[in-house]
Amino acid sequence: MENVALPEIIAYLQTLQQSICEELENLDGHAKFIDDVWSRAEGGGGLSKVIQQGNVFEKGGVNFSHVHGKLPDVLRTETRNAQYFHATGVSIVIHTQNPFVPIIHMNVRYFSMSETENGDIVDEWFGGGIDLSPAYPNETDTKYLHTVLKDVCDTFDASYYTTFKQWCDEYFTIKHRNEMRGVGGIFYDHLRPQSAAEKRTLFEFMQAVGNSFIPIYSKIVKSNKDKVFTTQHRNWQYIRRGRYAEFNLVYDRGTHFGLKTNGRIESILMSLPPQAAWTYNYVPEVDSEEEKTLPFFQPINWFL
Amino acid sequence: MENVALPEIIAYLQTLQQSICEELENLDGHAKFIDDVWSRAEGGGGLSKVIQQGNVFEKGGVNFSHVHGKLPDVLRTETRNAQYFHATGVSIVIHTQNPFVPIIHMNVRYFSMSETENGDIVDEWFGGGIDLSPAYPNETDTKYLHTVLKDVCDTFDASYYTTFKQWCDEYFTIKHRNEMRGVGGIFYDHLRPQSAAEKRTLFEFMQAVGNSFIPIYSKIVKSNKDKVFTTQHRNWQYIRRGRYAEFNLVYDRGTHFGLKTNGRIESILMSLPPQAAWTYNYVPEVDSEEEKTLPFFQPINWFL
Repeated sequence: MENVALPEIIAYLQTLQQSICEELENLDGHAKFIDDVWSRAEGGGGLSKVIQQGNVFEKGGVNFSHVHGKLPDVLRTETRNAQYFHATGVSIVIHTQNPFVPIIHMNVRYFSMSETENGDIVDEWFGGGIDLSPAYPNETDTKYLHTVLKDVCDTFDASYYTTFKQWCDEYFTIKHRNEMRGVGGIFYDHLRPQSAAEKRTLFEFMQAVGNSFIPIYSKIVKSNKDKVFTTQHRNWQYIRRGRYAEFNLVYDRGTHFGLKTNGRIESILMSLPPQAAWTYNYVPEVDSEEEKTLPFFQPINWFL
Repeated sequence: MENVALPEIIAYLQTLQQSICEELENLDGHAKFIDDVWSRAEGGGGLSKVIQQGNVFEKGGVNFSHVHGKLPDVLRTETRNAQYFHATGVSIVIHTQNPFVPIIHMNVRYFSMSETENGDIVDEWFGGGIDLSPAYPNETDTKYLHTVLKDVCDTFDASYYTTFKQWCDEYFTIKHRNEMRGVGGIFYDHLRPQSAAEKRTLFEFMQAVGNSFIPIYSKIVKSNKDKVFTTQHRNWQYIRRGRYAEFNLVYDRGTHFGLKTNGRIESILMSLPPQAAWTYNYVPEVDSEEEKTLPFFQPINWFL
């Protein structure tokens, strides 16, 4: 079997970015993505595609990047002393107008290291995931999300879904509040191929995850985007977005890594909400719609 | 000279909290502080006083705390292996309705350690500071702030203002944006008395800083609170509040310490803005009012 080479991964990611943006524009029906091309002094760069003030999407980014060169010091410990790296991926965060349409996050990425620039790979891995952060979670959408992701995982490895779902629940927990930022999904990292065949399979898994974004999000957007909402719903959305910002700024490894290695600030912080709120000691009223959302932000087994 | 004992510091801090809240209520003319008493399982507690939805103040907290007991592990390295501690202080953050009235932050605190519970003090220090974060800084207010703080400092030590002003500029810098969150002020920590007389003096310095809050903020609030503002001004205020949240969640040591030691979440995150915004790659228009604010967010010597 032919070994998967970096250009093949990059080509897939660029196509994925393009097709996701087209579908999101269709769903929005009004706003268009604008392109923001950037380059990195030390090597590589990216294309950030940003949508703002749409009918459906209030602020969203679909970012492709491929950066490479000498390994930043902060990454040294992970990397068996290899000196050079390539990192490529697509990263998505979408914030919505309607409080009933969830925030979605997706990331698929590939990382490789070598001892000389563009030399033989001495270590490499795939990582990624999809997770959903609705202000008003419902069982239908959440089960649908987890069913699609379980199907994607089961095609590759019977243990994937259980492992990656739990990893997601744990990773996206706001520890100081003891709650998840949303209803989870899957999260995986450091999937290291041990052979050319395994690398092909892991690349196919990356594609399966990437390709599940549109089926998952289209259906959920369509079934919620025309729901009528009040100021109270919008207010709860702002509060939940505040929690989202808390997670990303306090805990997210990718955000911290980007900020501390002089990454491209606007692309890193693209994930932050267009508007968010922090009300002192906000506790939803007993039996309110908002209180009913709270159990969703704890780990739940959707296949019992 | 009689040694300053902990009850004397606590009594001052409680009086300070009370007098600041009374003055802020007078300035607001409408909203009242509500009391939120809390206790800490491991020892001590506090009184958080919170004001929301006022005429002038949109969300503010004036918090007193005195916590004590066994030293949390995360503090061990700083503490010469002492096992027990007392920490007491007043901490204030005020967010305002009018974009022309600045956010203010003040903190004065005292920390002591002993080898047995309530035993002889083996290490102790004072820390604190005041800094201002206007969305629309102006020279008059900023010079006034720095003049009052310089006068306070100069009474105690000719080197204090220069040192503590620079410390503030550096501490409250949002490193990933290379800008300060506001126009600075003073910041100091680990002022360790070497004698009973020095402890008395440092306690007097704490009081001088604490007592400068009202003169500083009253004047600045009064001269800006009735200024007419537009949606554009409010929008820039939201953006600057986003930067404030970024600083507090990514860099602030007190916030991180609180979150990681299972502190009282609502009191710690009281500092977060009632509403904040993140617009993708927002850059103020050339020659706009907003663009003219940017030089203020870099270190400036106000006494050249």
